[in-house]
Amino acid sequence: MGMTMIEKILAAHSDQDQVKVGEIVNARVDMVLGNDITAPVAIKEFNKIGVDKVFDKERIALVPDHFAPNKDIKAAEQVKVVREFAQKYDITNYFEVGQMGIEHVLLPEKGLTLPGEIIIGADSHTCTYGALGALGTGVGSTDMAAAMATGKAWFKVPPTIKIVYKGELKPHVSGKDLILYTIGKIGVDGALYKAMEFTGEAIENLSMDGRLTMSNMAIEAGGKAGLIAADEKTEAYLKDRAQREYTVVKPDENAEYEEVIEIDVSQIAPQVAFPSLPENTKGLDEIEEKIEIHQSVIGSCTNGRIEDLRAAAEVFKGQKVHKNVRCLVFPGTQAIYKQAMHEGIFDIFIDAGVAVSTPTCGPCLGGHMGILADGERAISTTNRNFVGRMGSTNSEVYLASPAVAAASAVKGYIAGPEEVK
Amino acid sequence: MGMTMIEKILAAHSDQDQVKVGEIVNARVDMVLGNDITAPVAIKEFNKIGVDKVFDKERIALVPDHFAPNKDIKAAEQVKVVREFAQKYDITNYFEVGQMGIEHVLLPEKGLTLPGEIIIGADSHTCTYGALGALGTGVGSTDMAAAMATGKAWFKVPPTIKIVYKGELKPHVSGKDLILYTIGKIGVDGALYKAMEFTGEAIENLSMDGRLTMSNMAIEAGGKAGLIAADEKTEAYLKDRAQREYTVVKPDENAEYEEVIEIDVSQIAPQVAFPSLPENTKGLDEIEEKIEIHQSVIGSCTNGRIEDLRAAAEVFKGQKVHKNVRCLVFPGTQAIYKQAMHEGIFDIFIDAGVAVSTPTCGPCLGGHMGILADGERAISTTNRNFVGRMGSTNSEVYLASPAVAAASAVKGYIAGPEEVK
Repeated sequence: MGMTMIEKILAAHSDQDQVKVGEIVNARVDMVLGNDITAPVAIKEFNKIGVDKVFDKERIALVPDHFAPNKDIKAAEQVKVVREFAQKYDITNYFEVGQMGIEHVLLPEKGLTLPGEIIIGADSHTCTYGALGALGTGVGSTDMAAAMATGKAWFKVPPTIKIVYKGELKPHVSGKDLILYTIGKIGVDGALYKAMEFTGEAIENLSMDGRLTMSNMAIEAGGKAGLIAADEKTEAYLKDRAQREYTVVKPDENAEYEEVIEIDVSQIAPQVAFPSLPENTKGLDEIEEKIEIHQSVIGSCTNGRIEDLRAAAEVFKGQKVHKNVRCLVFPGTQAIYKQAMHEGIFDIFIDAGVAVSTPTCGPCLGGHMGILADGERAISTTNRNFVGRMGSTNSEVYLASPAVAAASAVKGYIAGPEEVK
Repeated sequence: MGMTMIEKILAAHSDQDQVKVGEIVNARVDMVLGNDITAPVAIKEFNKIGVDKVFDKERIALVPDHFAPNKDIKAAEQVKVVREFAQKYDITNYFEVGQMGIEHVLLPEKGLTLPGEIIIGADSHTCTYGALGALGTGVGSTDMAAAMATGKAWFKVPPTIKIVYKGELKPHVSGKDLILYTIGKIGVDGALYKAMEFTGEAIENLSMDGRLTMSNMAIEAGGKAGLIAADEKTEAYLKDRAQREYTVVKPDENAEYEEVIEIDVSQIAPQVAFPSLPENTKGLDEIEEKIEIHQSVIGSCTNGRIEDLRAAAEVFKGQKVHKNVRCLVFPGTQAIYKQAMHEGIFDIFIDAGVAVSTPTCGPCLGGHMGILADGERAISTTNRNFVGRMGSTNSEVYLASPAVAAASAVKGYIAGPEEVK
């Protein structure tokens, strides 16, 4: 019987010819990830296990990015726990402030997450690596601890939903719009403990940055993973990055899917997810009211890549941020920061009155660097718009693409790039 | 009888021919400044006064820089109070995130603080403007409130200490080293409620950025002000900036000083102020032990100007931040940010593994973006190294120049630029 991508990956990592939906497997993991919030908990659990070494010092990534650069004393203490653990066990991929980035932007960039691999991370957006044809998935800190010790983790083989994106994208419609549209269609529990495979010509035509954005938000539909089979674009992306050999995994032609959904992308307008769930999507063309905003956030593990910054810069060129709005940009990594600087993107931002931060998760999760007060409203390229996500429980977050977030920053209300002239 | 600079400025602003030390005068102020910590308190007091307008909407500057971009919900609420006040009274010089900078770097850059003027600010480092030949001094929020309503403030005319800096600076000795040396010599209460006049050939030869650094730290010797008479350098600096007419004030030749101190700068090595007072200074040549550091902070209202970033970049060129150190740079304003970017300074920083922040006061006052954990030690170009200033009460801050902070970041312990090769 044919297998889906996730089935093939789980089978290969548990030395089986075949795995079946619902089966529990104990699989080898290729990379274990933690950040400054989750790793300290995992380290505490790891210490209880009583082993005196990690399974592989090159296959653990520790990225302090959520409340780093240290927001406060508590954050400083958390990062210190992670740093000391990294020193003690000589962890290769510990990323200090200055070398760091947002974990899910940094790891693919560094070639640490590869096709056919299993990457578990104590962070829900570990599903990002699906864009490289890997099984990336979020786990709890205890699972992270066990995996740091054993190099293995338990999985229940999930059913797969195949989503076929057909047709050609309209201008200003990006991977972010595709995934928001998809979540709007199937709901925040539409893929609960299921894998998704994103496929079809629109995916083939999508850039790696756009694919990473899509897989990043698989969890917002409840997905265990959001996989895209590696192709020439993936190989090109990995050419000078990949830190290990890897085996590309594609689904069998006769793989069994729980459901196949077809989406005609040519009908999709830029999307906006209204408060307070990512599924509350509307096309820009369906929004009739003028929704005034106070803040625009561009960046994060969802949209902090170079293509995202380029899309925002295209809108900001020759424009100014509206006087009632503050706009903050969070590049995903130092490399992206440098590239954007060289491309003149930061000149455009600064001339427009945009603040450019060092890489950090920042306000995405209500961390720091742009928290909302009571009654304030933000448009954001991040991935969640839950109640209080970016600050006060009486604030609101609308999710959108970088182009829409930039256009809204200029207009002062939620708007598309065509409205900025 | 002749008058010192501060006497002349106070006399002119209270319409008197002469003022005497100890006299109380009610003087017009040219600019009133507040930030996100102090302005909300001042606004509350202002509202109690019951007036329906400010004395001059162009002569109030409101700069959210301490906990901005908003660190947390409380910070967001504080900034919101300031923003709404600025909107209500149509305050010209309200600086939103993206246009903002660190207040005492921003105001001189914008030409809002001019020779011969009185600038009061609800921030102790308002003395920075002394470098332009202005009486800049810190006041409480209540005084700020009264001044926003009346345009006036009460002053007790302080005695003046004249400090004459003679000779030529050694390489890598900057304005920061001069002021640290001075504070080390006279102590943190050496100029308590006294004005200082910084003069002599070393001051004449010092750049505007170096002078601003010196005046910025006058308060660290207890000074009411640290004045430097405007000269051709000042005029050149203000040429395309000054927002108003101004009158240069110089001390009378027969002015009466409480004390005259002469300092031979040719004997001064780069200075380091040890914990936990700015007066605990030593020359680098006097430090025998290897003082390991965990963090290096370059920026702030003291040393966040272009010349400071250049000095740091010169050291970092071709070097890497030590693996045990995180180094954070805080440019003073968006204009400085842009200039540093264009000069290739940020390339050097990023290649070295330095994090570059958007302008903010950051960790200087233990705000955010680089707080210290228990047992951690920082070298910093900021102005205060009090217990717990940058985080945990069991952390330490050593004050130094940008060149020394950069060299220490590379070496991993407190070191001078000559040691980096």
